[in-house]
Amino acid sequence: MESAASVPKPPRPERRLSLLDETILAPGAVKINVQGAFIVDELESQGKNSSEDGAQHDTRGIRLPHHTDVVSHVALDIGGSLAKLVYFSREPNSKELGGRLNFLNFETDRIDQCFEFVQQLKTTQQALSGSLPGELCVMATGGGAYKYYNDMKKLLGVEVLREDEMECLIMGLDFFITEIPREVFAYSDTDPMQFEEPRADIYPYLLVNIGSGVSMIKVSGSRQYERIGGTSLGGGTLWGLLSLLTGARTFDQMLAMADRGDNTTVDMLVGDIYGTDYGKIGLKTTTIASSFGKVFKMKRQGESEAEDGSGLSNGDPQRADGSRAPERAFAPEDISRSLLYAISNNIGQIAYLQCEKHNLERIYFGGSFIRGHRQTMGTLAYAIKFWSNGEKKAYFLRHEGYLGSVGAFLKRQPRNWGRRNSFEESSQA
Amino acid sequence: MESAASVPKPPRPERRLSLLDETILAPGAVKINVQGAFIVDELESQGKNSSEDGAQHDTRGIRLPHHTDVVSHVALDIGGSLAKLVYFSREPNSKELGGRLNFLNFETDRIDQCFEFVQQLKTTQQALSGSLPGELCVMATGGGAYKYYNDMKKLLGVEVLREDEMECLIMGLDFFITEIPREVFAYSDTDPMQFEEPRADIYPYLLVNIGSGVSMIKVSGSRQYERIGGTSLGGGTLWGLLSLLTGARTFDQMLAMADRGDNTTVDMLVGDIYGTDYGKIGLKTTTIASSFGKVFKMKRQGESEAEDGSGLSNGDPQRADGSRAPERAFAPEDISRSLLYAISNNIGQIAYLQCEKHNLERIYFGGSFIRGHRQTMGTLAYAIKFWSNGEKKAYFLRHEGYLGSVGAFLKRQPRNWGRRNSFEESSQA
Repeated sequence: MESAASVPKPPRPERRLSLLDETILAPGAVKINVQGAFIVDELESQGKNSSEDGAQHDTRGIRLPHHTDVVSHVALDIGGSLAKLVYFSREPNSKELGGRLNFLNFETDRIDQCFEFVQQLKTTQQALSGSLPGELCVMATGGGAYKYYNDMKKLLGVEVLREDEMECLIMGLDFFITEIPREVFAYSDTDPMQFEEPRADIYPYLLVNIGSGVSMIKVSGSRQYERIGGTSLGGGTLWGLLSLLTGARTFDQMLAMADRGDNTTVDMLVGDIYGTDYGKIGLKTTTIASSFGKVFKMKRQGESEAEDGSGLSNGDPQRADGSRAPERAFAPEDISRSLLYAISNNIGQIAYLQCEKHNLERIYFGGSFIRGHRQTMGTLAYAIKFWSNGEKKAYFLRHEGYLGSVGAFLKRQPRNWGRRNSFEESSQA
Repeated sequence: MESAASVPKPPRPERRLSLLDETILAPGAVKINVQGAFIVDELESQGKNSSEDGAQHDTRGIRLPHHTDVVSHVALDIGGSLAKLVYFSREPNSKELGGRLNFLNFETDRIDQCFEFVQQLKTTQQALSGSLPGELCVMATGGGAYKYYNDMKKLLGVEVLREDEMECLIMGLDFFITEIPREVFAYSDTDPMQFEEPRADIYPYLLVNIGSGVSMIKVSGSRQYERIGGTSLGGGTLWGLLSLLTGARTFDQMLAMADRGDNTTVDMLVGDIYGTDYGKIGLKTTTIASSFGKVFKMKRQGESEAEDGSGLSNGDPQRADGSRAPERAFAPEDISRSLLYAISNNIGQIAYLQCEKHNLERIYFGGSFIRGHRQTMGTLAYAIKFWSNGEKKAYFLRHEGYLGSVGAFLKRQPRNWGRRNSFEESSQA
């Protein structure tokens, strides 16, 4: 159960508002100047904070030191489980030029809170810039851009521009790969963040976006992309099953439990079946043969032991006194770890096979499922390495959940955004 | 819970023994004459019967009308969850020549019962043939052939020959495809059993063997095979998770529940996210975007409603009176159907991708997971059709769980078993 003490104290809505007081947002068409953009790695702003109203504030903002134009839009990527918001603000308490991109997410079933927050942004904008009501524009993507389109327009009284989900994901990812230092990294247990330098020659690649479900998108060039597959076994599956099987009530509780768990109490390993390895086909004794494969038989064993104890042997778990035989308990930590492994491994294998089919070597894993969680990244990276014999490579991002919303945010500017263009602009300025 | 009334009455062990009284088993090297083999489709012997001691007797035996030699061996494929037994017997109450292959399975965690049954076969054999103790031979395969090797030898006092699991699977499958009419079929909801004629030109193909875990084996020719992949999300995962999530205690109960369930109460569909379809990338409104994707949010909603009812709003599900807020219940039937879909779809997709990588068109699905269950076969067949645009084809078998044990059974004869050879033998006889 969640207690106030176990959760980092969030910035309260009022504090956010006071940040917003510093924010200058103004209407009009904008070109985002991304020159020299970098992640704000302040010590106090590491990690993610949960607020009491369900919003998650990712405090790792991105500084845009050369962007001086007003920004009149926010971007919102509304998925099946989470709504991801990106907005621009001036640096608070600072005389520095530029500003920063802020990243914030809400649970989609509490989308009202998200809309309230955007409403506050709009109000503040009006207060600061004196612009007319309705001049804030929401760039919306994800399924919720359609589902909540009318609500958004009506509740917020703003213009809502809908953008294609896949296109936004790719634009956002391209931005992170090409522009942001210390954003993209390869993972290994011994060296968890091997950063990649921003690079221009990025195509072709596979994007595996893991939200509630999983989309796999082959990207062959700028705006050349195709959704080649996906799987329904994604974050929603993990969260849904674990909320049924464990006492956990938040994703982070589930991940914390997985960290402490031992999957070998519930998974059937090759060694459990063979008593040894199956060397002939390269299956080690520790390979997981069947996820949750021990549960059924252990439950049955537990029941028959309980039956033996009560003198019954006819397969009926009802005891003589009418009470049910106690079930063999499985630790929620072990269940969490097993399911995290199963889902991550499975995504890794399908991603590898799609790469084989489409002749791709680099895989970028994005989406809110990953949450910077080491075990998740470790399993995904290992699966790619294992299946491809090291020939394909997995990459991760620090803003992995915000590809779509950043893409939507950047859409509010001409096609040729980016470094070169930014230089031209700043030299003209 | 299982009740005596809801389960077809099994043949009791005594009846089996009386069948065995009719059985002539004798030691010595054997050539199985498979000429004219066919499935015994007697009305009273359709389907599968559960006995009280946990053994499952598959009464669809295979008649071998021309096999007259004595048979001194039985074959046992011991997997992670089930042990599958194949043995030969003369036709009971009949003056017909030949005999039949019998198919029987036991839960691996009740392997003692399996050994007891084999012990009875051995005893009966001794009584009938007067052969010396130890002249029954057990052909053993599967992981349990290693794990239980010493137990088998010691308990049964017989010779145990271990055979490679993959090789047995392939030999068994080749036998079914090439020799047995009305064994192999394609499935569609409107025409559930489109039988394939026995054929000789069978290579290359993919075998997807679904037991506790899943093995995928590429078969290029006679005895030319390679395990190219697999997944830990198999039958053991379905059985394990459903035994935790529902009251079901047997596989058949779980499948029966899945038949009655509606997965859309727990799965998040494309329509749930978009409010419509996502036509641009061909995702229909009814496509499952996230398996169990509705559970997490519905559980949270249920909790917050309960909290509202008790006047609490601080996120703590503890009520004022100390009791926990009631959780939103999900029907075990719906959970069963969702998980069955998820596991079957996933296997189908990975099988398709392996076919793409290895340039294969025909996929045979074997293993005890399938159990002749229409929904399972329908989902697997649909997944192959969907992903391959109808270019690849899924096949099923009536003895899908017995590939390995039949293969092991047939190993006790020269390499060139089969129709042509059988003709030669019978013309020599």
